[in-house]
Amino acid sequence: MTFFELIHKEETARARAGVMHTDHGDVETPVFMPVGTQAAVKTLDSSDLESLGAQIILGNNYHLHLRPGEELINNLGGLHKFMNWPHPILTDSGGFQVFSLGLQKEKSVDRGGSNAKLVEIDEEGVTFHSHVDGSKHRFTPEKAIETQHKIGADIIMAFDECTPDSIPEEYIRAAMERTHRWAERCLEEHKKIKVDKTGLIKSPHQKFLFGIIQGSNNRSLREESAKFIASKDFDGIALGGESVGYNMQATKDILDWVYPFLPEDKPHYAMGLGLSPLDFFDVVERGVDMFDCVAPTRLARHGVAYISKPTKDEDNNYRLNLNNAAQEKNSAPIEENCACPTCQNYSRAYLHHLLGANEISALRLITLHNVYFMLNLVRKMRQSIIEDRFREFKKEWDK
Amino acid sequence: MTFFELIHKEETARARAGVMHTDHGDVETPVFMPVGTQAAVKTLDSSDLESLGAQIILGNNYHLHLRPGEELINNLGGLHKFMNWPHPILTDSGGFQVFSLGLQKEKSVDRGGSNAKLVEIDEEGVTFHSHVDGSKHRFTPEKAIETQHKIGADIIMAFDECTPDSIPEEYIRAAMERTHRWAERCLEEHKKIKVDKTGLIKSPHQKFLFGIIQGSNNRSLREESAKFIASKDFDGIALGGESVGYNMQATKDILDWVYPFLPEDKPHYAMGLGLSPLDFFDVVERGVDMFDCVAPTRLARHGVAYISKPTKDEDNNYRLNLNNAAQEKNSAPIEENCACPTCQNYSRAYLHHLLGANEISALRLITLHNVYFMLNLVRKMRQSIIEDRFREFKKEWDK
Repeated sequence: MTFFELIHKEETARARAGVMHTDHGDVETPVFMPVGTQAAVKTLDSSDLESLGAQIILGNNYHLHLRPGEELINNLGGLHKFMNWPHPILTDSGGFQVFSLGLQKEKSVDRGGSNAKLVEIDEEGVTFHSHVDGSKHRFTPEKAIETQHKIGADIIMAFDECTPDSIPEEYIRAAMERTHRWAERCLEEHKKIKVDKTGLIKSPHQKFLFGIIQGSNNRSLREESAKFIASKDFDGIALGGESVGYNMQATKDILDWVYPFLPEDKPHYAMGLGLSPLDFFDVVERGVDMFDCVAPTRLARHGVAYISKPTKDEDNNYRLNLNNAAQEKNSAPIEENCACPTCQNYSRAYLHHLLGANEISALRLITLHNVYFMLNLVRKMRQSIIEDRFREFKKEWDK
Repeated sequence: MTFFELIHKEETARARAGVMHTDHGDVETPVFMPVGTQAAVKTLDSSDLESLGAQIILGNNYHLHLRPGEELINNLGGLHKFMNWPHPILTDSGGFQVFSLGLQKEKSVDRGGSNAKLVEIDEEGVTFHSHVDGSKHRFTPEKAIETQHKIGADIIMAFDECTPDSIPEEYIRAAMERTHRWAERCLEEHKKIKVDKTGLIKSPHQKFLFGIIQGSNNRSLREESAKFIASKDFDGIALGGESVGYNMQATKDILDWVYPFLPEDKPHYAMGLGLSPLDFFDVVERGVDMFDCVAPTRLARHGVAYISKPTKDEDNNYRLNLNNAAQEKNSAPIEENCACPTCQNYSRAYLHHLLGANEISALRLITLHNVYFMLNLVRKMRQSIIEDRFREFKKEWDK
């Protein structure tokens, strides 16, 4: 069976419905993937994710390498067993974290100079310091692939350098070209592990490797990167970059630039996208099949819930702040017709009280809602694609 | 139907099995009651408590009066509806909190003097300042009963002064005598609300009022208090005091002193007890039917789980610290034969990792185990009473 199966393409848009087949089950696309960076989707456990209907979740190679370490996870039978999640998992390679968490400490974003003391890039790889304990670590493309095989997700990512937008073009080009050379080394190591090093890996299921398009907000670099990554033997194609998911105009532009070069028979993954429900429509109609975002869980931990009604506040659209005094006496659930366990059982007044009383139960209850909200929206979106009414469904939302 | 039904008395001990009948269902005693001070058992939600088999949970009148307030809870239909817990609830009157949380701020424990500025006691009642925002509040016995009726638990407590052990006997006596006068006023107000003020109360189910024995660690005062409280028309008899549950030798002594005066046809409640699993045996064999303790939830939030095996560490007996490096690679659950959702699904290694990574999911998972552990132990204890093998069951534990 092929990994990715295209089920239906919406007639009036590039929106697609598909299925990814993995040894841990199928993933129906488009799909929202909850983020479980450190082997847990924050505040939840695997039973919660199961009950919400999550199909696939994310882990992070950088974080899991630092803590608890890929050796421990491998020795305990792999990440599925470690976190008791029998369904598909994707790990990001940690490229984004190596650079962003390293640079945060120094507040230095100029990659052109030599001031990024905590992160040293050379042709071979990257030396960085743990944000946990300051200890020195090194990732090469080969190492990042090996650690991901040991962690044992179903889908793993090439090791890339995620470049900011506001740096000189020559640096973006140099980084992109290095990312391409690293992509080839990742592919090679991936094949080598499958053939020569299988004894090392305790979770023997098949692993699929995705390549990542970089090039910041530069059209010709993005096109060049798309062509390159598409030409290689990856199982899927991802779109990386600082603005993806955070600057939606830039995200849409980049998707429009690269779309002509994306192979139709491979899944397309927009990395770190899902700040607003509307963002899903914007990328699905540009041919994206997969996305993940920490916003639903992070906002929940600040007492903010997603709602289906636009709130006409540009920065907080489709959001309800349960901390607000307006919710103090409100006996309604977050959303009247929401089937999530929180809306089925608790009022806004109760959640408002728990937040005010610093009861962490509130954080989980709002997270349950937010994750369900995103999963359910994308499930409905997929159905609308299959029924050739994606545009109408979008109009119901984007008023 | 009577409120309390004695089912069986163990032949070789004072241990009893009974049932409390309430409008929200039966409670089989002896019973461990998880503590949900602020309308939530910390880290859990009502569905969790349901799945653990909790029969009755606690709320706190002091905390709920301050936040969100009894008016709000009453207007939303009462505490059962507010927190979506359809089973029995008991609220403590807040006597303990008014004195302990008030005094904490001043670090003044000498009740004989006039230095307890944050808590002013007079014959009528107590004026205190909120630990939340410093605002001034006043509880009289009448007020504490009215707020509890508005909050709407099934079992409510008389408003008492919980005295420390290390204060002059004359103060303990004065406080105890005042507590007795307040107990009578509580009973009167309780009857008045049932007759005259039912229109005020949105949750019309029957409420049962318990009296509280005080007298610190003074035998003659405890006996006098037991006689007095037992002579009144309370639905149950509680044992209060600073040392109850914290100084087990004192707790056992006090129980032995008061036992002859406790009416057999009313439930006996040891307030704030359950630090160690063995404590349950010590009080159940002295005729106690109900107990509550924050230890199972508080310890869980520090990464400490209860286990069935004595650890021979006096301060940490029957406990496993999941933060310890020894658990880092341990693929076993907290307890091999535990049926709790945490032991059914997760290893010590995973919980250790989540704690180290500051994932709050860990706090809930360990809380689920600890609460289940206590509920399950007391369920088994009840069965052993019914089968006349309580002593043998105790021996299995107390090695």
